[in-house]
Amino acid sequence: MTIQTTSANFRRAIALASKVIERRNTHPILETVRVHANGRFEVTGTDLDLSVTASVEREAGPAADFALMAPKAIVSAVSAAGDKEVRLAPTAECGKVSIASGALAMTVATLPADDFPLDAVRELHPEFTATLSREHIAALARVADAISTEETRYYLNGVHMSAIAGAIRFDATNGHILYRVDVPTPDAAGTLESAIIPRKAVRLLLDLAKSADGGISIVLGRIAPPNEVGSTAPDRKNLLRFSASYEERAASVQISGKTIDGMFPDVERIIPAKRDRQCVISPAALRRAVAAVSGHERGWRAVKLAFAGSDQLTVSAAYVGLGLTAAVTVPCQHTCAGFEIGFNGGYLTSILTAAGGDEVVLDFGDAAAPMLVRNTADTAWLGVMMPMRFD
Amino acid sequence: MTIQTTSANFRRAIALASKVIERRNTHPILETVRVHANGRFEVTGTDLDLSVTASVEREAGPAADFALMAPKAIVSAVSAAGDKEVRLAPTAECGKVSIASGALAMTVATLPADDFPLDAVRELHPEFTATLSREHIAALARVADAISTEETRYYLNGVHMSAIAGAIRFDATNGHILYRVDVPTPDAAGTLESAIIPRKAVRLLLDLAKSADGGISIVLGRIAPPNEVGSTAPDRKNLLRFSASYEERAASVQISGKTIDGMFPDVERIIPAKRDRQCVISPAALRRAVAAVSGHERGWRAVKLAFAGSDQLTVSAAYVGLGLTAAVTVPCQHTCAGFEIGFNGGYLTSILTAAGGDEVVLDFGDAAAPMLVRNTADTAWLGVMMPMRFD
Repeated sequence: MTIQTTSANFRRAIALASKVIERRNTHPILETVRVHANGRFEVTGTDLDLSVTASVEREAGPAADFALMAPKAIVSAVSAAGDKEVRLAPTAECGKVSIASGALAMTVATLPADDFPLDAVRELHPEFTATLSREHIAALARVADAISTEETRYYLNGVHMSAIAGAIRFDATNGHILYRVDVPTPDAAGTLESAIIPRKAVRLLLDLAKSADGGISIVLGRIAPPNEVGSTAPDRKNLLRFSASYEERAASVQISGKTIDGMFPDVERIIPAKRDRQCVISPAALRRAVAAVSGHERGWRAVKLAFAGSDQLTVSAAYVGLGLTAAVTVPCQHTCAGFEIGFNGGYLTSILTAAGGDEVVLDFGDAAAPMLVRNTADTAWLGVMMPMRFD
Repeated sequence: MTIQTTSANFRRAIALASKVIERRNTHPILETVRVHANGRFEVTGTDLDLSVTASVEREAGPAADFALMAPKAIVSAVSAAGDKEVRLAPTAECGKVSIASGALAMTVATLPADDFPLDAVRELHPEFTATLSREHIAALARVADAISTEETRYYLNGVHMSAIAGAIRFDATNGHILYRVDVPTPDAAGTLESAIIPRKAVRLLLDLAKSADGGISIVLGRIAPPNEVGSTAPDRKNLLRFSASYEERAASVQISGKTIDGMFPDVERIIPAKRDRQCVISPAALRRAVAAVSGHERGWRAVKLAFAGSDQLTVSAAYVGLGLTAAVTVPCQHTCAGFEIGFNGGYLTSILTAAGGDEVVLDFGDAAAPMLVRNTADTAWLGVMMPMRFD
């Protein structure tokens, strides 16, 4: 039983599957990748919540499954060896596999394949399926920056997916900013009430999908209890799973995992209703102004927006300890004369970047109410941002 | 008194002078740059041991000196503002300067120029001068990796300069590796016994000199005691100073500082005399082999070189905990059949990179003796490396 494959495919498969592996682990099996070489060379990595399986072509021989130690070390060694081919074979010694590539000869420990936790990749009973194009994935990237990293409100640690007529709606919020984007999915099938895809899965999907050749197929569903073929799984939220698969270069990749079992807040209530002040401005010009007055290390205060006349906005900030104040005037069209409001400069930069385009509309209530940001050329996206005291 | 200059020159001068400023400081004055605008726009930064002065053209008006707070914040703000011109002027409020560039208006606190410690840039009585070309600076970079960072033997925390016939010799060692390079300096004048240029100064010089337009002029000397014009300063080692100056694009830059007051070890005694085994090999091929077998995170052991026949070298390593062993065979010409020796993989990579070229000669004594590395095409450089136990 020798597994033979090209060095590029071998490294690609192991590198993709290894991306999900955490740096520090409690058990050696969580540092391995599971190798399944039946027809293709299939490699799986997991962090228990999330699994990535990458599958590439292989050339000869059947082989038994095993869990390979030190996958990242193997990739870097094979890469440095610089040969085109790789051959894997068990050694006479039990629990070891030899890896040969050109002048390189390695021996690596293995663990039994049965010890590898495969729960996350178990077959789903699909409840909702859709295909996301490259553009849809780019849209998902536009909301990802608003995902919370704070652990107390764990249900904010992901992107909320919900179905609206002919589209999927992605919402993410960390309590300071909220980003929403609607992506049309004409081929969506089944019903999707609500699902929260965890942050790590979103980041991994965005990272891996950069080189995706075509669309990404998304499946949301429940897993069947073991030994109950075809039955309807019990209706428990924590059994809701997702799976995303796509082809990239020589590899096909599947990401599977648990969704977050929690209630996402009612986002409609966060979007401000009362908006009697409006400003139309270039997001790039406003972002440059924010960069010029903020981003200094110490004694941070809010960035202040002060409107004058009908076409002048002064963006300013002051720094305690640095003895520094800075102000930039930006041309715009507005109905906010005399109005002042403060924001966190980092979030303001983030929301303007996520909005994109050549022109954004900023809607304000009063100085304590959230601001609504829209891109005039792209109504699928919107952002909401909480103000901050500046004095 | 308004100082007017181009935004590019303004940012360049402040950025160059700021490079020497430490991230954390005990006194606010050490976070400022001193601005001296008499004829040119001259900016000085210091960490008390080392000073950098950058001088660029300016356009109008005389001005008094001041020490400017938050220099890095000013550079990033002026850069983000994107205008071509910058104007500096004192404000009505004492201890503040206003900075205007396009739509940007800043106010920055200043400290009295007299508080700024200028000791490092005081005039030297030259004892030794030489001009280093770009190639010489590249040679200095080839020894810099061997500088020690360990504080107990503080006299190893720099590059040792000494004069040999028609050349300057640079030596650096951290106790594990020693790199030496001789650079011819036909225009050297005066006498140089021995000086240790501190690590930070070497790094700063290499960093800043990347864009130097021509040669770098080096001066070693002693400073005169205050109020003693033209006298010979007392012969105390700790008064030995160095200064390096060069032109780059629009700026002229001067780096000044103290040398390290200590005895550098007698490097001749480290270079092994007994060398009865020799190997001629491609440094790139050997480096690739080291990369393939080493660089894995945990359970590090030495890289083992094992020689067989007259043209075969096996480079191998084993990792405790990862259950991984890796070996690569590299072709070479040698007289070491049956000889085995272990090295730290990181240092081995470093010494092969520093050696450069297409072919290196490795000289060995026994497995406990240091290895001598030479580049056959470039005899100005040599490296010595201590072995390591591999079992």
